[in-house]
Amino acid sequence: MTETSAYSRLEAIFRKAATIGEALSVLHWDMAAMMPDGGAEARAEQLAALKGIVHETITAPEVADLLAAAEAEPTDPWESANLREMRRDWVHASSLPADLVAALARAESTCEMIWRQARPAGDFAQVLPSLSELLARVRDVGGIKAERLGLAVYDALLDQYEPDGRAADIDPVFDHLDSFLPGFIGDVLEAQARRPVPLAPPGPFPADRQKALGLRMMAVLGFDFRHGRLDVSHHPFCGGYPADTRITTRYDEDDFASALMGVLHETGHALYEFGLPGGRWRSQPVGRARGMVMHESQSLLMEMQACRSRDFMMFAAPTIRQTFGAEGPAWEADNLFRRSIGVERGFIRVEADEVTYPAHVIIRYRLEKALIQGDMKPADLPAAWNEGYARLLGISPPDHRLGCLQDIHWYGGSWGYFPTYTLGAMTAAQLFDAATGAVPDILPGIGRGDFSPLLAWLRTNVHGKGSLLSTRELITAATGRPLDPAVFERHLRQRYLG
Amino acid sequence: MTETSAYSRLEAIFRKAATIGEALSVLHWDMAAMMPDGGAEARAEQLAALKGIVHETITAPEVADLLAAAEAEPTDPWESANLREMRRDWVHASSLPADLVAALARAESTCEMIWRQARPAGDFAQVLPSLSELLARVRDVGGIKAERLGLAVYDALLDQYEPDGRAADIDPVFDHLDSFLPGFIGDVLEAQARRPVPLAPPGPFPADRQKALGLRMMAVLGFDFRHGRLDVSHHPFCGGYPADTRITTRYDEDDFASALMGVLHETGHALYEFGLPGGRWRSQPVGRARGMVMHESQSLLMEMQACRSRDFMMFAAPTIRQTFGAEGPAWEADNLFRRSIGVERGFIRVEADEVTYPAHVIIRYRLEKALIQGDMKPADLPAAWNEGYARLLGISPPDHRLGCLQDIHWYGGSWGYFPTYTLGAMTAAQLFDAATGAVPDILPGIGRGDFSPLLAWLRTNVHGKGSLLSTRELITAATGRPLDPAVFERHLRQRYLG
Repeated sequence: MTETSAYSRLEAIFRKAATIGEALSVLHWDMAAMMPDGGAEARAEQLAALKGIVHETITAPEVADLLAAAEAEPTDPWESANLREMRRDWVHASSLPADLVAALARAESTCEMIWRQARPAGDFAQVLPSLSELLARVRDVGGIKAERLGLAVYDALLDQYEPDGRAADIDPVFDHLDSFLPGFIGDVLEAQARRPVPLAPPGPFPADRQKALGLRMMAVLGFDFRHGRLDVSHHPFCGGYPADTRITTRYDEDDFASALMGVLHETGHALYEFGLPGGRWRSQPVGRARGMVMHESQSLLMEMQACRSRDFMMFAAPTIRQTFGAEGPAWEADNLFRRSIGVERGFIRVEADEVTYPAHVIIRYRLEKALIQGDMKPADLPAAWNEGYARLLGISPPDHRLGCLQDIHWYGGSWGYFPTYTLGAMTAAQLFDAATGAVPDILPGIGRGDFSPLLAWLRTNVHGKGSLLSTRELITAATGRPLDPAVFERHLRQRYLG
Repeated sequence: MTETSAYSRLEAIFRKAATIGEALSVLHWDMAAMMPDGGAEARAEQLAALKGIVHETITAPEVADLLAAAEAEPTDPWESANLREMRRDWVHASSLPADLVAALARAESTCEMIWRQARPAGDFAQVLPSLSELLARVRDVGGIKAERLGLAVYDALLDQYEPDGRAADIDPVFDHLDSFLPGFIGDVLEAQARRPVPLAPPGPFPADRQKALGLRMMAVLGFDFRHGRLDVSHHPFCGGYPADTRITTRYDEDDFASALMGVLHETGHALYEFGLPGGRWRSQPVGRARGMVMHESQSLLMEMQACRSRDFMMFAAPTIRQTFGAEGPAWEADNLFRRSIGVERGFIRVEADEVTYPAHVIIRYRLEKALIQGDMKPADLPAAWNEGYARLLGISPPDHRLGCLQDIHWYGGSWGYFPTYTLGAMTAAQLFDAATGAVPDILPGIGRGDFSPLLAWLRTNVHGKGSLLSTRELITAATGRPLDPAVFERHLRQRYLG
């Protein structure tokens, strides 16, 4: 077998895995948006069967030899990058013994099931034993992957979501945020208190009107409805693949802004998928989105940077008024804009605003790192959680439902995921800063509902790169320097105190 | 390896194939009901990949040995039936060389593509070369399967859709229909002409109201919404599997009855899936619906026997009036009933009524059998088609769009499928006759919107049998005798001349 054919065979193997992965993403979307409840058990079997086939495909006995053979041969930079991503997939897929994979899956589903009962009751003690068991298995996974990858255990877990993400890079960035956030939040709340409270547009807002508004704004941002759709699910998400990317939202008939902002957020994710390179790149590892940080940066760039702005609200306000057949001072662009950037010290991460959100993430990041490193016991989580909230946000959750039981991540087995939210927010600020600096028409474009200058910059500098570069290289190439927390800080200061 | 483990391994192999088959059916449903157009190419790749895996799973080298080993051992009747169905799947899946499978797939997609252009233009000459090529490949397939199965070529193709279906059984039944239909159609039209024309309920009928009506009637028939849903697609169908069965319809805002009757029809299919036996049967070949004849019998039993009846319309009329906020003579039960059983000599099979439908099918059955057996050339199809319509229906299509180009079946590669429609209609009549004879409350139940007596009989006598019996055995066990065209004839005479 020649080396050329080794590489070609790898492309075929990973194409097959990607194609089945696409089918999996349709089944996941369906489960969240369409499936009747009684289909859950059968769907779980289908997902397990297809995941098993993807795993078998990537870890087939010949793949190790093919990777070694292909890597030993001269390849062009694109092929090298593709091989690098293939090896990354292979290492993550092949490193765990089957009994650990099974034990992890059991621990995840047991813990998540108990968490679903314990959360509404605020009963941390109920979930503690299964959380401890799950953490032990996650640490087993991290330990094995750490050895294979030559990384610390936490980094090995983080690497599953954010390739090449490292705690040593995150710590100084989060320390920078920590150094100004508590005081800054106080300053913002004081400044906000000196201004009149924005008026609440009076509802109700029928779901079908909200959907029509969402669809119009998706079109404005550049969503391609020939390759995607908008539906409803309990937890909004963006799923699918470049040829068929589907976003979901849910409608609160008392508050149209929550679904609208959610739709703009998920549209940012979708635009990243749509903008990924086509042709030879499709269904190859190098053609995928770069990682969770970059993906979150694209949703937050659209939601937080582009759309929670006076420019966008000047454009959007007339459409919003028209949609709901409303007028009056509550519907003025400036009022809608100020409502969209209200800040509040709250307990719940998913309801948090742009200013307080990073505090929620820093708390979780430090806690999960300590738990993974064995510096803290699960039993000590509630106290440490409340301590973190007191120090960073100045509030103490009245119960664990509003505290350490609120997020599914740990109880479902996602450890090492949390930092990507705030790294994404910071990356969004830095990319938007570079884009608007490089292309003067981006901000005026947003003000007139023309996102094409922004989208063109993102396609050239982010979307069209796939996974060719690392996240750090991509940010550096696009903005002239690696992730710099000062840019995010400046953005916050300008928007909230400027 | 012991024989016990051979059988167990087969169960595991066929369970895996069934699970991936379920995923395929969700992807098919999504393609028809949800997928944006631009997702078609990627979806085709996904379907091909999963079909390939199903094929590999069933035809894995060890399956032949496992089947032989399991068959040599004593098994209980349930296991024997399961093995019989496994072998049937295996023979159909393993009999064709890979190059013929590929040539067939190419010929099918080419011919169907050209047919999509030729049909609106009524241009049979345009599609003739690719139809001839496709027919040649279908005959290759039939020839190989005929040899493997010890059957005639047409029977080998029919067996793909209707296990154990044989032309020798169909011919006398269709000859019986042929012997009375042309005269009977004339009698029915004369009788109809002597009665006043039923009034057309005045529209328009908004799609959302039609959907609400469809959902209410699905519930009345016993549709389990915890395990299914109703959506829209261009061609109505029933897809999915017992745990998650989904039906579709499409709404004509000028005629509510077409979607309503379509929904009742597809609900009949869905009730069969819901009623298939659970537990050990699920995901095993013996647990599947028996075949296309029995499946079509269940949809036609609900639509034609139960719901296009005066009893059902007495129950449904008030709900229909309430749905559309209408009243007046056009909305009376008797008028709605008489509109639901109007008879007309028409060119289009899918628009045909219960009386003329069998003529459309007999024409196609005889033509496709002649083409498959080599007794006729594709070039002679249009003339033979028009001759058949003149003789059986007394009309001649003015163009091929309304003639031999109307159905996708032959141009898409489905040969041997057509007879199942009318065999299903006759089976429906015979089952309904037996059911109402055995359970006096079935007809009164339908009249008060209580389908549970009918459903209970169907679950016991049809649905709950899965594929344990052959179609012939199942009909005999349920009704006391094999398929008897006299029962269908009696039903038609009573409803249309009685």
